[in-house]
Amino acid sequence: MSVNAANLRIVLVAPRNPLNIGAAARAISNFGFTDLRLVNAYEVAFREARSAVRAGAILESAREYPSVEAAVADCTLVVGTTSIGHRQLLHSVRRLEYAGRLLRKQLASAPAALLFGSEKFGLSNEDISYCHWLLTIPTRDEHASMNLGQAVAVCLYELVRSPVRVKPEERVRAASRDLDLLTRRLTEVLGRCGYVHSDSTEGKVRRLVRRLNLPAHDAEILLGMLRQIVWKLEHTPPALE
Amino acid sequence: MSVNAANLRIVLVAPRNPLNIGAAARAISNFGFTDLRLVNAYEVAFREARSAVRAGAILESAREYPSVEAAVADCTLVVGTTSIGHRQLLHSVRRLEYAGRLLRKQLASAPAALLFGSEKFGLSNEDISYCHWLLTIPTRDEHASMNLGQAVAVCLYELVRSPVRVKPEERVRAASRDLDLLTRRLTEVLGRCGYVHSDSTEGKVRRLVRRLNLPAHDAEILLGMLRQIVWKLEHTPPALE
Repeated sequence: MSVNAANLRIVLVAPRNPLNIGAAARAISNFGFTDLRLVNAYEVAFREARSAVRAGAILESAREYPSVEAAVADCTLVVGTTSIGHRQLLHSVRRLEYAGRLLRKQLASAPAALLFGSEKFGLSNEDISYCHWLLTIPTRDEHASMNLGQAVAVCLYELVRSPVRVKPEERVRAASRDLDLLTRRLTEVLGRCGYVHSDSTEGKVRRLVRRLNLPAHDAEILLGMLRQIVWKLEHTPPALE
Repeated sequence: MSVNAANLRIVLVAPRNPLNIGAAARAISNFGFTDLRLVNAYEVAFREARSAVRAGAILESAREYPSVEAAVADCTLVVGTTSIGHRQLLHSVRRLEYAGRLLRKQLASAPAALLFGSEKFGLSNEDISYCHWLLTIPTRDEHASMNLGQAVAVCLYELVRSPVRVKPEERVRAASRDLDLLTRRLTEVLGRCGYVHSDSTEGKVRRLVRRLNLPAHDAEILLGMLRQIVWKLEHTPPALE
């Protein structure tokens, strides 16, 4: 199930640094979200946020709100982010891995908000009072607080992250006949060069070539190289003894 | 299985912006990694990277290398990051979700490197020739390229992310006797206020209270509020008719 990105409101509360606003906008754009909201942004000039490479559309359509209450009024689920720290939290705190699953489920049918506090202080107790629960990114206790732009990116990644087992995008493997051709060519080269192996050289080479697990493209390249080596060996006069 | 963080080398190739170097260092510190390596950093003054709040130790111990070859010499697996883009890639490209699993497995027993290219150009074809395979963060095609600091944070998050199903850290729920007390108090208040329901009011209230699924702490708060309301109602003279 892919996430219903249009239903997520990313709310930055009292952000101070335009670079962070820009970085948040960029991550929003990277991961296919659209709705950025700002509450009491310190820099009115947030639209100039410099680090927002190609995230102009997100910043253009971002809306400013006078309060958290107003910014989340249309949301049926409001989730705050916290690095926990020293405050005694009365809300449930869920790790991002689990929180992401709950958020995705909610977004499928209704708007939800994800709140990020200011760089210096995080969300205030009053901001948190508008949240149904909190999420925390699994950072280490000794250095829990993340940069705002990075925290936004990590949370959004978790939301778009594919929970299914993704198969590697493998290249086409070389067919067995190509591997056999390669084996013969290499055995031939080794023979011409005086390589001797107690066992059958061809058997040894065949096992080696199989272990390499070559993509078709690379088998072709190796064949070309060997062809050239064979040609050279055939056209080299025997060394004077 | 938690990740063996000490075995990961995070290699920034030709980074241009000290802020990004600082942001990368901060994410490395946040997620418990330690080994930052720089190849041809544009700013020799990378140690001054301003955005590295409390990531000083990472930057202090970061080492500079003259080439990718030298930076990854001790690694048995080298993974490059790419947003794919226009280049025809001959390497296998794996999505981060899957790549993370392979990397974790490798890190358990041996050092591995994760390479990030410069902000402007990404990894060069020569850089990539030192990689066993590539990983890509699942951004959308129309805006695939992430900010360097954010890309580092997202990749490291995937590595520390707990693959097990995390249960929510729930608060202690209210015991049934507290819910019953709450039900009686609220029914009493409603009765005093002339609230009438065709069915049994107490039954209606009981069902409502159960649906609220209250934590013990919140049931206590509500009880206190109702106690105060009852007190007020008891001490208010009857209205003149």
